[in-house]
Amino acid sequence: MLEVKTAAIIGGGVIGGGWSARLLENGIDVRVYDPAPDAQAKLEAVLANAEQAFAALSKIRSTKRGSVSWHQTAAAAAGGADLIIESVPERPDVKRAVYAEIETAAAADAIITSSTSGIMPTELQTEMKHPERLMVAHPFNPVYLLPLVELVAGEKTDAKYIEWGKRFFTGIGMHPLHCRVEIEGFLSDRLQEALWLLHDKVATAEEIDAAIAYGPGLRWAQMGTMQTFHLAGGEGGMRAMLAMFGPCLKWPWTKLMDVPELSDEFVDEVGEQCEQQAGDLTPRDLERVRDSNLIAILQALKGNNWGAGKTLARYERQLFEAANDA
Amino acid sequence: MLEVKTAAIIGGGVIGGGWSARLLENGIDVRVYDPAPDAQAKLEAVLANAEQAFAALSKIRSTKRGSVSWHQTAAAAAGGADLIIESVPERPDVKRAVYAEIETAAAADAIITSSTSGIMPTELQTEMKHPERLMVAHPFNPVYLLPLVELVAGEKTDAKYIEWGKRFFTGIGMHPLHCRVEIEGFLSDRLQEALWLLHDKVATAEEIDAAIAYGPGLRWAQMGTMQTFHLAGGEGGMRAMLAMFGPCLKWPWTKLMDVPELSDEFVDEVGEQCEQQAGDLTPRDLERVRDSNLIAILQALKGNNWGAGKTLARYERQLFEAANDA
Repeated sequence: MLEVKTAAIIGGGVIGGGWSARLLENGIDVRVYDPAPDAQAKLEAVLANAEQAFAALSKIRSTKRGSVSWHQTAAAAAGGADLIIESVPERPDVKRAVYAEIETAAAADAIITSSTSGIMPTELQTEMKHPERLMVAHPFNPVYLLPLVELVAGEKTDAKYIEWGKRFFTGIGMHPLHCRVEIEGFLSDRLQEALWLLHDKVATAEEIDAAIAYGPGLRWAQMGTMQTFHLAGGEGGMRAMLAMFGPCLKWPWTKLMDVPELSDEFVDEVGEQCEQQAGDLTPRDLERVRDSNLIAILQALKGNNWGAGKTLARYERQLFEAANDA
Repeated sequence: MLEVKTAAIIGGGVIGGGWSARLLENGIDVRVYDPAPDAQAKLEAVLANAEQAFAALSKIRSTKRGSVSWHQTAAAAAGGADLIIESVPERPDVKRAVYAEIETAAAADAIITSSTSGIMPTELQTEMKHPERLMVAHPFNPVYLLPLVELVAGEKTDAKYIEWGKRFFTGIGMHPLHCRVEIEGFLSDRLQEALWLLHDKVATAEEIDAAIAYGPGLRWAQMGTMQTFHLAGGEGGMRAMLAMFGPCLKWPWTKLMDVPELSDEFVDEVGEQCEQQAGDLTPRDLERVRDSNLIAILQALKGNNWGAGKTLARYERQLFEAANDA
């Protein structure tokens, strides 16, 4: 299927700029449309940051670099592109208007992806002439460093484009994840939670962030919810955890949601999946890998005098002074 | 106030074991009670992992090491302890029974903390003789490496213990965070979300985890929700982000929760707090710090052939082979 030599970037903000950087690094030319008066200066700032990042990240780099061209309309940018990446504001009406314009100029076999973090692709493709070629490819900021990209098909999306997406995004150093069911974006939920905490004066912005970056966030860099809880159960893994923690889940703890019933069958399914995921590693083995990762992350953060790395540095100073006093 | 030479560990599982490791490393003796037949072997396995972790984490270590003693009842362990840390299963009835037993033997000025991740301290202290000395000190697994500990007072908790807790936990290398309002634990919410996804066959355990560890999790190791969104707005920071993203928040996107109204006043408050948190650093400066942290984390994970580090390794191999073919 489609080889991408040229991509159109519709919307050159933080996400469109990040996409541009990753594509250019992979030798793909980008055709940018963004109506903001300072769009070009902003994109250049993102590209400069990305260039530094690539140089620091790896000694092995692609030999070919793409080039940037600017265009006056979305249609002009989309014409001649193999892949058209839309990263305009998160409003269905704005996005639909952009697709209508793109479709006047796009090549018949061009693929259109939306970077939306929460709008369902089925809702986005309703008015399109060729809805089968639209899918969501949701990246994470900064797009040039974070590998995850979530691929979501709408009801009218041709399944072959998901398969194409898996190959293409893997090829540019990403980790495509096919979300087989259209669900609303969790990204926005996270923000909503944080905004409520601040709104209700439960915590300040700094406290909300500390509650993540000094604890669970250090785990999430390497393990998701399931593996984290697989290790919360000790040697018995997730099954032991559900047995221990399970009764809690039945309480009216939270206004936020219902809780699945922890039937024997469901516990079995969860346990089975967590064990499969772990492969040959027992929970104790996984603990050692996790600790080794945490140590490397803490030391890396200490090197940058940042976040939990500052706590480690402070503790070392404290021990050093105590030893001197003794 | 209270200096801690001896701590009681009531419940020696994953969390109690992690507490033990951190306390021993700081020269504090621990008195353990855990009725499980294999409790001692499990605790020793945790201590062995922690010992390896401490040795790898830092060349600067405390010169004094605490010792472990085992006891037949919670009362026996609690007697003679300056600090009593309860980490028994997450059931209020079980915890209350443990406190009743502890109070028969605890010294008058001993402090009692619960490691609960979600039960409100007010609910825990209802039947205590001296409820003023109970508070929640909620750590994160592995307790010996992750610095965060959330301190929560119940209605009857004496405020001076929170102040004591801030000093004490800082002294043992942690980052205490005072949660000024009692709210239900988010930890459990995260698990509930994941369980629903698996239950409804939206995603497998492995996919749920990839959706965290290959993208947002890499950011959360160093930045929380607020700072992340402060950087999603480009040069305009959180204010620009709310202007761009705001309309979404008003949609009926999610069954999960209401959304605070994005009034001018509230947007101002959020923007102000995010700018304060950033101090002298502009969003562009913060981007460079974030990228530097991400690079260090990705390289650390690559060194362990784990998670997003595997994606980086695979990409480098791919580039290397392409260069060889050319």
